[in-house]
Amino acid sequence: MLELSRADLHVSISDPAATSMNFLNEIAGRYPDAISLAAGRPYDGFYSVEDVARYQQSYVDHLRGRGLGEQQVRGLLLQYGRTNGQLGELIARMLEIDEGITVPPESVMVTAGCQEAMIIALRALCAGPDDVVLVAEPCYVGLTGAARILGVEVAPVPETPDGLAPETVAEVARQVRAAGKRPRALYLVPNFSNPSGVSLPVATRRRLLDVAAEQDLLLLEDDPYGLFGLDDEPRPTLKSLDTGGRVIYLGSFAKSCFPGARVGFLVADQTVVGEEGKRTLLADEMSAVKSMLTVNTSPISQAVIGGVLVESGCSLRTANRDKLAFYRNNLRTLLAALEEHFPQPGRGELGVRWNVPSGGFFAVVDVPFQADEKLLERSAEQFGVLWTPMSFFYTDGGHHAIRLSCSYLEAEQIAEGVRRLSRLVTENA
Amino acid sequence: MLELSRADLHVSISDPAATSMNFLNEIAGRYPDAISLAAGRPYDGFYSVEDVARYQQSYVDHLRGRGLGEQQVRGLLLQYGRTNGQLGELIARMLEIDEGITVPPESVMVTAGCQEAMIIALRALCAGPDDVVLVAEPCYVGLTGAARILGVEVAPVPETPDGLAPETVAEVARQVRAAGKRPRALYLVPNFSNPSGVSLPVATRRRLLDVAAEQDLLLLEDDPYGLFGLDDEPRPTLKSLDTGGRVIYLGSFAKSCFPGARVGFLVADQTVVGEEGKRTLLADEMSAVKSMLTVNTSPISQAVIGGVLVESGCSLRTANRDKLAFYRNNLRTLLAALEEHFPQPGRGELGVRWNVPSGGFFAVVDVPFQADEKLLERSAEQFGVLWTPMSFFYTDGGHHAIRLSCSYLEAEQIAEGVRRLSRLVTENA
Repeated sequence: MLELSRADLHVSISDPAATSMNFLNEIAGRYPDAISLAAGRPYDGFYSVEDVARYQQSYVDHLRGRGLGEQQVRGLLLQYGRTNGQLGELIARMLEIDEGITVPPESVMVTAGCQEAMIIALRALCAGPDDVVLVAEPCYVGLTGAARILGVEVAPVPETPDGLAPETVAEVARQVRAAGKRPRALYLVPNFSNPSGVSLPVATRRRLLDVAAEQDLLLLEDDPYGLFGLDDEPRPTLKSLDTGGRVIYLGSFAKSCFPGARVGFLVADQTVVGEEGKRTLLADEMSAVKSMLTVNTSPISQAVIGGVLVESGCSLRTANRDKLAFYRNNLRTLLAALEEHFPQPGRGELGVRWNVPSGGFFAVVDVPFQADEKLLERSAEQFGVLWTPMSFFYTDGGHHAIRLSCSYLEAEQIAEGVRRLSRLVTENA
Repeated sequence: MLELSRADLHVSISDPAATSMNFLNEIAGRYPDAISLAAGRPYDGFYSVEDVARYQQSYVDHLRGRGLGEQQVRGLLLQYGRTNGQLGELIARMLEIDEGITVPPESVMVTAGCQEAMIIALRALCAGPDDVVLVAEPCYVGLTGAARILGVEVAPVPETPDGLAPETVAEVARQVRAAGKRPRALYLVPNFSNPSGVSLPVATRRRLLDVAAEQDLLLLEDDPYGLFGLDDEPRPTLKSLDTGGRVIYLGSFAKSCFPGARVGFLVADQTVVGEEGKRTLLADEMSAVKSMLTVNTSPISQAVIGGVLVESGCSLRTANRDKLAFYRNNLRTLLAALEEHFPQPGRGELGVRWNVPSGGFFAVVDVPFQADEKLLERSAEQFGVLWTPMSFFYTDGGHHAIRLSCSYLEAEQIAEGVRRLSRLVTENA
C-alpha cells in the first residue's frame, strides 16, 4: 500500500486543535467511567428516535398545506435543491419572534451545521492573503480550524471577564492595518461564549457595532447558546441592534434542536455591488461558495428542523422551555459544587478561581498548576474526571485554566465530577 | 444597509462555472415550457416521500438487530457522531459486492455528498501553493470549483474520444514539474464521464495506474454513473485494479439512491507516515479536514442511505435494475433521435457530429456554430429546448459543442427535445 508522508499533507491535517480534540476523545474512550466535564454536547434525553419521522411528517404536511402537489413535495425532499436551502421563511420568522431580528427570507442560507456557515463566511469575505479575521480569544476551535483550511490569517483579540473590549478590537484592527493587511471581520460569541462562558454587556454590544463601522469590519456573530440564560434578562443579539448592516449572524440548531440534523444557517442581508453597479444580496453571492462545499444542505435534514419550527410556531425560545430549565439547573449545580468543594477560606490558598457565567454550557476554572494533556490523562486515570485544557483555545495561553462543561451530564454527575476535580486540585496545589 | 464591493469578495464568488450554472437555471426558470436536455439530475419517479421514513426505520432496525440499546441508537441518530460517519461497514460491503473493491471499513469516510469528498481530498493532498491537481478536460465543474475555493492550481489534460491518454497525463505531469511545481493528483470520471460521456478502456485504466506510479500521482476516481452502462460489459473501477494504493475513490449516492440525502463518501486506504514513523490511515488523517467543514455528515441522512443499503443486501447494482433499464432506454432514445433528426446524408453538410457513449447520462454534439449563452437563450425562447454549452467545462474551449443530458426526462420528451434541437441547428447551420 502506498505510503504518504504526513509532512506532505496540508497543514490543517496536523491542526493542533484537531489533534487536541482527538486526544480528548481518545482519553474519554480509554477511561469510559470517568465523568466528562469536557463534553460540550447537548444532553441526550430530550428526543427519541421516533421524533425524527414525526418532525419530517410535520414539515411535509406544512408543504402540502401550502398547496404543494405530491410531485413538488417529492422534488423538495429527494432532489437536489436550491443551494441556499428551503427553510428561509421559517428561519426568518423564528429570528423575528425569538430575537427581534428582521431580515428577508432570501438573506438566510441553510448550511450543513454552523461549521459550514463559518467557513462559507470566511471564504466569501477573505479574498486574498492580506485579509485577516479577528477572533475573540480564547476562541472556539471550529473557527480557527476553518481559517486554517482556507489559509486565512487569524488575529486574536484577548477577551476580558466582561467579554471583548471594543477599544481592543479597534487597536488590533489598527495593528493589522499597520502591518499592511486588511482586518476583514471579527468572530465572536456574544452570549455565554464557548469556551469562556463570558457574555457581552448590552452597552458594549452597541459600542462594538460602532467600532465595526469605524474600522470597516464585519461581525460574525455566533449564537448557539443564546436561549440558555440563567435569568430571563433580555440579551439582544448584535444582529438585532445592527442598523448599519455590519453583522453576519451564524445560527445553530444543534443545541436548540439536536446535533444529528446537522442543520445551521447564516444571515447575510448585506448588499453586494458588482460590475456596472449591479446590486445583489450577500447571501446569494455566498451560494457560489456553498455549492462547491456541499451543493446544498440535505433536504431530509432540513425537513426535520422544518418540522421542529412548524410544530413550535417558529419559536424555539418557547419550544426550549424544558431544555432551558434543565441547563439552568445544570449550570447552577456546577457553580454550587465549585462553591462547595472549593470553600472561600481555603480557595485563595489553593489558588483556585472561576468565573460565574450568566448562562450557557461552560465555566472556566483557573488552577495553580499547568493544566496540560499529561495532567488530563492522570486526571482521567487516577481521579475519574475529564475536563478541557483552556490552552486548546489559545494561540498561546490558557496554560493554567480548564474549561468545565455542564451540558451533557445530569446534575448528580456534575456534582460528583466537581468533587473528583477538587481531589485532583488539592493533590496538585 | 452595508454595501460590499463584489471585487472585494473571494474569487470563487465570481466563479465563471457558478455564473454559468446560474444563467442556465435562470433561463430554465424563464422558459418553463422548454424541454431541458441540460439538467443532469436523476429522474424523479423512482422514490416517494414515504420511502424516507421507511429507509430510516430499516436502518434503525438494523442497529437494534446488532444488539444496540435504545440509548445507543438514539445517540447514533441524534447526537454529534464520528467525524468519518457510521456507514463504513455497509459501504465497504457494497464496494466488495458491486465493484470488487476490498478495503477496510475504516478507510471509508462518509461525506455530505460527493462534492464534500472532492474538496476534502483536494485539501488534504494539496499542501502548498506549488501543489497542482491535474484534471481530465472537459471537467465536471464541481472539481474545478472546489479547487478554486482552496486556491489549488488546476492543470487540464485534454480528453480524447477514448478518454484520457495516459501518456498525455505523464506529459502534463512533467510540464508541471518542469515549472517547479508538484503534480499531486489527477481527477477523472472513468465511466461515462460528465460532461463528455466518454469511458476509459480497461487496458488504458491499467496503463494509467502505471503512469500514476511513475509520476507519483494519486488518482481521484469519481464514479457516479458506473452502474448505468448500456451493456452488461464489466468495467472495473480503477480502485479495483489498484494494487499500488494510488487511487482515492470518490462515491456518490445521488444517482444510485437520490440526491436529497446528500450522502457521498471517499475511500482513502493509503498509509500516512508521521513523526517517529507513526503509521495512520489517510481516511483518519482526512477527518481533521472534514471536521472543519461540516463536523460530520448528518446521521439522519446517513440513516436513509444505511436503510437503502440494508434493504438491498448492500448491492446497489441489484437494487438499481429498474433505474438501469430506465436510463438505458433514455440514452438509446437520445442516440436514436439524433440519428433520426440528423440523417447520415445531410449530417456532414450540417457539420453535426456526436459521440456514442456506452452508458451514463450524457452525450456531446459538435455543432457548426458558436454554442454560447446567447444562442442558448434563443434556443429556449424560439425553439423550446435547453442544453449545456460545452464551453462551461473548459478553461478555454468547447465553443462549438453542446452537452445533452438524458437522465431527468422521460423518453418521449427526449425525442421531442432532439427534434426541437434539430430545428435550431438547421436554422443556424
